[in-house]
Amino acid sequence: MTRLTLDISMSLDGFVAGPNPTLEEPLGQGGEGLHEWVVALASWRERHGLTGGETNADSEVLEEVVRSNGATVMGRRMFSGGEGPWADDPNADGWWGDEPPFRHPVFVLTHHAREPVTEQGGTTFTFVTDGIEAALEQARAAAGDKDVAVAGGASVAQQYLEAGLLDELQIHIVPVLLGGGVRLFDRLGSDPIELEAIRVIASTAVTHLKARVVRGAISP
Amino acid sequence: MTRLTLDISMSLDGFVAGPNPTLEEPLGQGGEGLHEWVVALASWRERHGLTGGETNADSEVLEEVVRSNGATVMGRRMFSGGEGPWADDPNADGWWGDEPPFRHPVFVLTHHAREPVTEQGGTTFTFVTDGIEAALEQARAAAGDKDVAVAGGASVAQQYLEAGLLDELQIHIVPVLLGGGVRLFDRLGSDPIELEAIRVIASTAVTHLKARVVRGAISP
Repeated sequence: MTRLTLDISMSLDGFVAGPNPTLEEPLGQGGEGLHEWVVALASWRERHGLTGGETNADSEVLEEVVRSNGATVMGRRMFSGGEGPWADDPNADGWWGDEPPFRHPVFVLTHHAREPVTEQGGTTFTFVTDGIEAALEQARAAAGDKDVAVAGGASVAQQYLEAGLLDELQIHIVPVLLGGGVRLFDRLGSDPIELEAIRVIASTAVTHLKARVVRGAISP
Repeated sequence: MTRLTLDISMSLDGFVAGPNPTLEEPLGQGGEGLHEWVVALASWRERHGLTGGETNADSEVLEEVVRSNGATVMGRRMFSGGEGPWADDPNADGWWGDEPPFRHPVFVLTHHAREPVTEQGGTTFTFVTDGIEAALEQARAAAGDKDVAVAGGASVAQQYLEAGLLDELQIHIVPVLLGGGVRLFDRLGSDPIELEAIRVIASTAVTHLKARVVRGAISP
């Protein structure tokens, strides 16, 4: 069975987005700074139709992530920033335009049913209304022998972690203090969740900490 | 002028102590796990009157910290775990016995005046009732040409950071999720605090992230 993994950039004070998100600044105040390391990479820029950029140890980390994932699960808010009926969502087509960078099937958790959308470049968006386990099941079937990625946001990541469904996480810790926003690890209850660190690749720009989840909040 | 530095172990989810602290388990549930990396070191064990232990890259980090600090500031709760009048504090002499490992002047922030205490091995405890700036001033005078360390807890560290008085921090990130307890970075307001990462030394046991505070929450 494919693994469920989470790759996400987090500030040193634990936020994956800054305060006061808007359509213009979906990651909130200071939130863009969390992704400077990735936006600087040649491989990321190429996938997003941009030129230039760097190739370094961070590139290898990113390439590994892209290579290993065959499907993605994400929350509605990560997809569009909105909530409620799709007809009322000003960003109902998502953030990524006609050729999203995923290039594989993406399953969007939502309370509002919607027909699937096929984009250019291999990305499909399927809207799942019956919960995180159903979304994971569909994503696993779509991923073949590759892994399934939880793209975020924090709430969806927490739900998979708390349910004991997350196998591995790689946190990209960025040395900035956002002071507020969306915490990645919140409302996890008070039971420690044991991790086994597998690998750490670090520079002053970003620390990639990869760990296996040994025990979820719900004991087996 | 000497610098004010903070060296503290933090879980990946941002806690410096677990939930439900007691006199027997002052760091709360799971909190001891944050210091396993340091307790395993030969140099730490020697300072605490114990034998054995390891010498590795973490030892050099610890030695550097010990070498550079000439005085320490800490909160009352870190000193004894208590609050209120000293006569009512069951741990009024602190956690460290007759020969505390600091071996330099320590300034304890408290609302309750008390005569200084001189311990064996060079540690003195001076109790400061007139706030964080007064404590820092006394500690600077005592540190000579060395640095002053904020030992903790989280509340005192936050106060120095928010006041723009902290020059440098080194967070020892331990790959464990405590799920609750005392957050290091909390109540910082919603203004990002800019850091400049200086050095990262990482293993799967602990990541030492050292950064200069470029701008405090209070602009100059």
